[in-house]
Amino acid sequence: MTHQKMSVGDIHTLAKDTLMKFGTDDLNASAVADIITMAERDGCVSHGLFRLPGYVATLKSGKVDGKARPTINKLAPAVVQVNGHNCFAPTALKAGHAPLIEAAKTCGIAVMPLIGIHHFAALWTELEPVCEAGLAAFACTSYKPSVIPAGGKKALFGTNPIAFGWPRHGRAPMIFDMATSVMARGEVGVAARDGHTLPEGVGVDADGNPTRDPNEILKGALMTFGGYKGSSLSMMVELLAGAMVGESFSFEAAKRDNNDGGPPQGGEFLMAIDPSLVRGDDGWNDHAEGFFDKILEQDGTRLPGDRRVANRAKHDKEGVEVSEIILGKISAL
Amino acid sequence: MTHQKMSVGDIHTLAKDTLMKFGTDDLNASAVADIITMAERDGCVSHGLFRLPGYVATLKSGKVDGKARPTINKLAPAVVQVNGHNCFAPTALKAGHAPLIEAAKTCGIAVMPLIGIHHFAALWTELEPVCEAGLAAFACTSYKPSVIPAGGKKALFGTNPIAFGWPRHGRAPMIFDMATSVMARGEVGVAARDGHTLPEGVGVDADGNPTRDPNEILKGALMTFGGYKGSSLSMMVELLAGAMVGESFSFEAAKRDNNDGGPPQGGEFLMAIDPSLVRGDDGWNDHAEGFFDKILEQDGTRLPGDRRVANRAKHDKEGVEVSEIILGKISAL
Repeated sequence: MTHQKMSVGDIHTLAKDTLMKFGTDDLNASAVADIITMAERDGCVSHGLFRLPGYVATLKSGKVDGKARPTINKLAPAVVQVNGHNCFAPTALKAGHAPLIEAAKTCGIAVMPLIGIHHFAALWTELEPVCEAGLAAFACTSYKPSVIPAGGKKALFGTNPIAFGWPRHGRAPMIFDMATSVMARGEVGVAARDGHTLPEGVGVDADGNPTRDPNEILKGALMTFGGYKGSSLSMMVELLAGAMVGESFSFEAAKRDNNDGGPPQGGEFLMAIDPSLVRGDDGWNDHAEGFFDKILEQDGTRLPGDRRVANRAKHDKEGVEVSEIILGKISAL
Repeated sequence: MTHQKMSVGDIHTLAKDTLMKFGTDDLNASAVADIITMAERDGCVSHGLFRLPGYVATLKSGKVDGKARPTINKLAPAVVQVNGHNCFAPTALKAGHAPLIEAAKTCGIAVMPLIGIHHFAALWTELEPVCEAGLAAFACTSYKPSVIPAGGKKALFGTNPIAFGWPRHGRAPMIFDMATSVMARGEVGVAARDGHTLPEGVGVDADGNPTRDPNEILKGALMTFGGYKGSSLSMMVELLAGAMVGESFSFEAAKRDNNDGGPPQGGEFLMAIDPSLVRGDDGWNDHAEGFFDKILEQDGTRLPGDRRVANRAKHDKEGVEVSEIILGKISAL
């Protein structure tokens, strides 16, 4: 696979120009291009330019409004609801970040329920601005069914990622961002392409029977990580990003989706916590750093997100190697 | 193993009288007896009368103050700090529940950081009163190191449970409560006693090497569930119940503990969310019930906590079979 070296700025320009060519206005195109660029910069290729054709598909089909203006409803002192009115999630998140941060710094904790959005990005990109304001953050979102509940046979949950971020003085925040499925569908696809057998417990075939054949899993469904524990967490994500915020569960999102290849309409639950107010003093940073040191003094450990942050420094200096295949797909749009 | 049938009321009396015999006053003894009784009633034997000798050990050693009076500090509109002043956790939780619920119903979401407590109970017992007030709830707490971080070889994390609860109109809330370790130390002990080999991925020996021998794991440490994903969650628990609330990480709690067999001093993070305020209407209950129905229409599934709630109805009517061995240990105190 050949690659082309692009600067971070060039990636942003390509993403933004492409989105604007298909009817997105400056505000919406910038918000999505920011998120795509963050992903490429941190080496998170699966959420970078690779996603651009999917974003464009939703504009072509009319499912997403590329000129939408999100509205903010302060439903309670610590509740900042954002209604995206069918926008891409990054536009809604950008609109909500400042009022969410303000509410958390006033109340100690605050939540941003997002409705009427189309989510197609990595959650860590959304927590970073919250953490950089000195807050801890948590987010989760659902999608369309591809994962079975523990004990069941049929996909009901999305891959339902959970992300948590912790602010760090003078350095990038610690953020983890994990699917609650054992692995991503894309990884199963790679195993199928390469003729590999998967470990036990990754997925089931179309009849709901456990299988290690990736081709059968692609026709069937994935399992949650850690068995019934991961299944409980995935169910929590459905409740928070669905019934709690007033948006679709994964199975409802799938029903109304037009299957154009881009993200369905759905919800998201995002939360910000001010450790200075919860603890009552500013000792949390030094306290947490001492704990991180205790983890890292063990050979073989690392903090979540460390690789991303290392990629970032490298890519800012040297640029990013972008796959020619992806660039070809974008220019063919 | 022989058992003795006891009514739920008799269990409460035994627990309360025993605690009072060792210097606990009425308020503190009632709070702990309530939690022990809830556990026995729901068939959660590992957190019932079985724990009473551990509670008593901390009274005998003077580590816990059986006459403490928790204080409430409203650190921000949505932050209800409870300082237990070295009490058993149930006393502090009982004091904090009403102001936490009030703050969540005003702000939409609220957090209760607990400090200066000794935690030895199941988290679901603490979420139930919050959920019964119509709120969703989340809690986590650390303990003493017995679990390795992913990639490492030495215990640093506690078994660090996470619990989440969802309110349901007219029925018991859905609550899950899970250790972030693969299994509890007690379960490894049972496997050792019975001469069983454990599956891969449960724990490591004293040198940090993976082993399936439960005796070696008891000398070594446990692993988190779901590999590095569970490890990230366990780290999140340490941050929330430690640096965030201003209490000990597990490794710090162990350093200052007197190892009397009862719980060390530590912290807890508990959160309440009002779905009516986050969503902006009362549609959450019917919406969630429809989702629960979709889970349960698949054979082989169940909702977390269903077995507990079924036990409760049975035990209220028929009483609880309590092990004579445990009763013997209590009368020998």
